[in-house]
Amino acid sequence: MRTRVHEHTGTGETRREDRLATEEPLELRLAAPGVAPHRAWVTMRTPGHDFELAAGWVVNEGLAPVDGVTRVGYCTDADLAPEQEFNVVTLSLTSLTRVPHRHEGHASGSSACGVCGKDTVADALSAPRGPRWTGELPGPDVVRRLPDALRERQTLFCRTGGVHAAGLASADGVVEVVREDVGRHNAVDKVIGSRVLAGSGTGAAVLVVSGRAGFELVQKAVSSGAGALVAVGAPTSLAVDLARDAGLALWGFTSSDRAVRYA
Amino acid sequence: MRTRVHEHTGTGETRREDRLATEEPLELRLAAPGVAPHRAWVTMRTPGHDFELAAGWVVNEGLAPVDGVTRVGYCTDADLAPEQEFNVVTLSLTSLTRVPHRHEGHASGSSACGVCGKDTVADALSAPRGPRWTGELPGPDVVRRLPDALRERQTLFCRTGGVHAAGLASADGVVEVVREDVGRHNAVDKVIGSRVLAGSGTGAAVLVVSGRAGFELVQKAVSSGAGALVAVGAPTSLAVDLARDAGLALWGFTSSDRAVRYA
Repeated sequence: MRTRVHEHTGTGETRREDRLATEEPLELRLAAPGVAPHRAWVTMRTPGHDFELAAGWVVNEGLAPVDGVTRVGYCTDADLAPEQEFNVVTLSLTSLTRVPHRHEGHASGSSACGVCGKDTVADALSAPRGPRWTGELPGPDVVRRLPDALRERQTLFCRTGGVHAAGLASADGVVEVVREDVGRHNAVDKVIGSRVLAGSGTGAAVLVVSGRAGFELVQKAVSSGAGALVAVGAPTSLAVDLARDAGLALWGFTSSDRAVRYA
Repeated sequence: MRTRVHEHTGTGETRREDRLATEEPLELRLAAPGVAPHRAWVTMRTPGHDFELAAGWVVNEGLAPVDGVTRVGYCTDADLAPEQEFNVVTLSLTSLTRVPHRHEGHASGSSACGVCGKDTVADALSAPRGPRWTGELPGPDVVRRLPDALRERQTLFCRTGGVHAAGLASADGVVEVVREDVGRHNAVDKVIGSRVLAGSGTGAAVLVVSGRAGFELVQKAVSSGAGALVAVGAPTSLAVDLARDAGLALWGFTSSDRAVRYA
């Protein structure tokens, strides 16, 4: 989105045009044999790759197996306001592998949300685990190159400065797919969802993210079956604990100059 | 938390000790006359100022009036695991001004969550509004000084590099209270909650945040009755829309060198 802004510096004021990262709500509804369509999640996200976001979220949350998405489409309910027409996605699943505590209930999230769908502190700490990565892992030199490789493909960030990115990369540092979003968790769900919808496995040698590595991002890395999580920012205590427990290689404060290995 | 890490640079590897920002889940339960205690929210947060986080969240979500919190305490349920003893907070309210769609249901969030508690795209876009700020607003020179003033009081960030901060400041740039958290929305809830628990109004000339300004942070600024929101990072499209609609002054990309006014 373009908008007029006033920029103030020590020497005065300039009026100019600025580009903004687009943010809109997305409502996700789930259906499965024997389970009527129901609202499962609301998030703030950057429109685009919405079906990947939906598919990646259900798989990363452990709500469906990686081959369990049978149909995904925008909802066409008569009760939707016209401007929300492309903000509601329905996902049909072969089954719900983990049943939320109340089907008729709801879980809601935000652009940066990863615990959503969790009911209690115990739920929040239980991470669905994908197959353990058994392939090669990137060495420190490859790790230090990944943030620049990711940034080269961040087209939205260059224009707006306001979005996060996530990418999947091989052990030798080739970035295979990149997705961007105002929410760092959404970017990860999109990039994993791209693999889900392609019908390929979600595991990759490396999940690389432009922000920090909180517990929820480590959860998504573990549930997708990644071998390593490389973050530009800092990890948290719980993120390091889970990575060590799950056998995920965790790197933080990563730049071309340095990379710190936490697990 | 302290931990051993391996730091890799172009010239080799160093083993050293590192400090991590602590992240743990917090479960919030609400009770009110005629409303039995029920789980309302789960978030990942940095422990500390938990009662402020709880009080700020209910008020910013429009679930209770600013003078509506009668009691706040850690839950002592027998069913809680010992290590979760200080991770469940119960808040007693005079009334629930906005009833979540299903009392027995749940809404859950994360360390960066702001839409949590919202059921649909329409809910997500409806912002509770506090009293409109009628006092003085900061000028551009004051705005440019605010990020440094906030950072001076960010004690956790200096040690870990992994937390966000929020502060309330006067129109002449005096930062009155600062709170930190791994989640940028939590930091805002804590800083507003400090006013709620002090029994003073939540309105302030400026809410200043160390990260970006998404829609949810503008919602919290509007619901708390702030006059201006000053963000170090970029705003999103929906954040600018809401700020203009609500009459909130919105500044982004703020540093000592420059500040961009979006609304």
